[in-house]
Amino acid sequence: MRTVPANDLLEFAKAVLIRLGVPEEDARIVSDVLIQADLRGIDSHGIARLRRYVKGLKEGYIKPEAEIKIIRETPVTATLDGGAGLGQVISVKAMELAIRKARENFLGFVAVRNTNHYGIAGYYSMMALKEGMIGISTTNSEVCIVPTFGARAMLGTNPISIAVPALKERPFVLDMATSTVPVGKIEVYDRLGKSLPEGWAVDEYGESARDPARVIENVYGHKGGGLLPLGGLEEESGGHKGYGLALVVEIFSALLPGALYSELVYPVDDEGRPLPPNIGHFFGAMRIDAFRDPEEFRKDMDDLLRRLKNSPKRRGKERIYIHGEKEMEMVRLREKEGIPLLDRVVRDLKDIARDLGIVPPF
Amino acid sequence: MRTVPANDLLEFAKAVLIRLGVPEEDARIVSDVLIQADLRGIDSHGIARLRRYVKGLKEGYIKPEAEIKIIRETPVTATLDGGAGLGQVISVKAMELAIRKARENFLGFVAVRNTNHYGIAGYYSMMALKEGMIGISTTNSEVCIVPTFGARAMLGTNPISIAVPALKERPFVLDMATSTVPVGKIEVYDRLGKSLPEGWAVDEYGESARDPARVIENVYGHKGGGLLPLGGLEEESGGHKGYGLALVVEIFSALLPGALYSELVYPVDDEGRPLPPNIGHFFGAMRIDAFRDPEEFRKDMDDLLRRLKNSPKRRGKERIYIHGEKEMEMVRLREKEGIPLLDRVVRDLKDIARDLGIVPPF
Repeated sequence: MRTVPANDLLEFAKAVLIRLGVPEEDARIVSDVLIQADLRGIDSHGIARLRRYVKGLKEGYIKPEAEIKIIRETPVTATLDGGAGLGQVISVKAMELAIRKARENFLGFVAVRNTNHYGIAGYYSMMALKEGMIGISTTNSEVCIVPTFGARAMLGTNPISIAVPALKERPFVLDMATSTVPVGKIEVYDRLGKSLPEGWAVDEYGESARDPARVIENVYGHKGGGLLPLGGLEEESGGHKGYGLALVVEIFSALLPGALYSELVYPVDDEGRPLPPNIGHFFGAMRIDAFRDPEEFRKDMDDLLRRLKNSPKRRGKERIYIHGEKEMEMVRLREKEGIPLLDRVVRDLKDIARDLGIVPPF
Repeated sequence: MRTVPANDLLEFAKAVLIRLGVPEEDARIVSDVLIQADLRGIDSHGIARLRRYVKGLKEGYIKPEAEIKIIRETPVTATLDGGAGLGQVISVKAMELAIRKARENFLGFVAVRNTNHYGIAGYYSMMALKEGMIGISTTNSEVCIVPTFGARAMLGTNPISIAVPALKERPFVLDMATSTVPVGKIEVYDRLGKSLPEGWAVDEYGESARDPARVIENVYGHKGGGLLPLGGLEEESGGHKGYGLALVVEIFSALLPGALYSELVYPVDDEGRPLPPNIGHFFGAMRIDAFRDPEEFRKDMDDLLRRLKNSPKRRGKERIYIHGEKEMEMVRLREKEGIPLLDRVVRDLKDIARDLGIVPPF
């Protein structure tokens, strides 16, 4: 374990991406999305993921200088083609466009196709907060979720993020995968040698899986089974609801813009080499004054969030959280103390640095 | 148990509402929403609920001839005040307005305040299907859901419905409470004398509750405890995600239009008599051609839904469902065979009929 200042990591990621042909401003965007994930404590989507972007850029299925095209446009909507570029770059532009449309016409919704992994969903929904708007962000992704009563992963972990401003309270920022847990959590259990709780994953027969190593092997090897949707294995525990939410995200993020979906994402050529994954994203920005006086709305937000936080706690629990609070507290801590990196991640980053002839900041 | 043709029940509900001062067209709307719930197999929201609307109309906290006001309007949004009228009436008008705005300007979002229970969320989202649009419907409701680590119900069961058209396949219609199960399900377990599964409800100490009678008494008596959000008791099983979704619905349905929220809904006067509940709803309609050629979109919908249905099943399971399929099959069955009514419901309806001097169709 080593702790590195956020800005050093950001400059390092930027240098790596520039060396791989990414224009400086785009490299800054991608690095910022990565480091914000680390700052927020979502380590699985932070600098640890740089390796995968490096791989994509080197193998050519992520284009460093992608051409972004507007496919369709109305005063309140647009569909963009990301040209198989970095997901973060097109996503920031798409969310900016949604916000501009909302500024001019109260609502802005932008769907994106032909794009790559975009990092944390919450980065983009939170962009709307600076404008006092509600922000929405969803994406489809590599298949991981098994539908209720199924035995094969057919939908991505398909996150939903919705960010809503308050007045004096911190904003509400929901940022959730529609699976019970992300793959990263299964990997943590594998490293700790712990068996999985009921409701997280199924094996290739669609039955409850407790061995994390087998689940990981199945998921990455596309050997059947996978993660369970939020709500778990059965309809009794509400698994069909999480499955439904994952399907909503697949429809909005992939089918509306005309991206690939379900098992079609991340295609390979005849020799098994990866082609552009062609996943899709969906973004929304909504002006509060389209519906109500924003000051009144924000006052009610403060009151609602305080009521929740001040409501009676379960025996032994000290605190009821609002979504985004833990992450914002982590940002404060890690901005001061730096970002802790696992030895495995440090080794990865050093390998990347050596390979590209860059001096790492650690 | 008795089985009654859907149309007889519809005419009966209409006659009851008209007798209580509801204009004929409005009575028809409310009755249709009720009977559609019964046809779809959502018995808790069907004719069995007529009793509660009768109570509200008689006690005056539901207004039979409510004045609907437009509070705020833009080309793509509106906020309506329902004048404490029947939730179904304002909801049909609000969804029609959202559809009209989408027809003219690609998107239409309408928030509603000062309204009452609106029945099944899916009724309104499905209205968009006839126009080939995507429909959205949410509402807040009487508090039932306990936030993660909490011990008191602070949010409604806050359903989300999203309806999306396909081409030859049936449409996708998600209609889900953001609790693991609705209160009605707890009542079923109580009648059967079964203890509750883990993840459904907590007692007044915030701890897992297994006794359905105690949960029902606590919920209706506001004595603490209540239903768990989708994902269950702990963060480990994803309970904070369901809590987050319930909070999103509370924000969109109640805070955006300026309705009451959390424990403030369903207020009473100084003598404990119910005042108008002032809950809120949120509706959306989205034109698919705002983003993509609708024919291509619908073809992809068919393909995605078929892939899901044809994917490998868990051992012992015959079928993977798409959301809305079970309900649509139930409609076909009950349109033919009639709607089965529990003896308790028949007694209730006969009481209402006798009280109002109406001859019931059974």
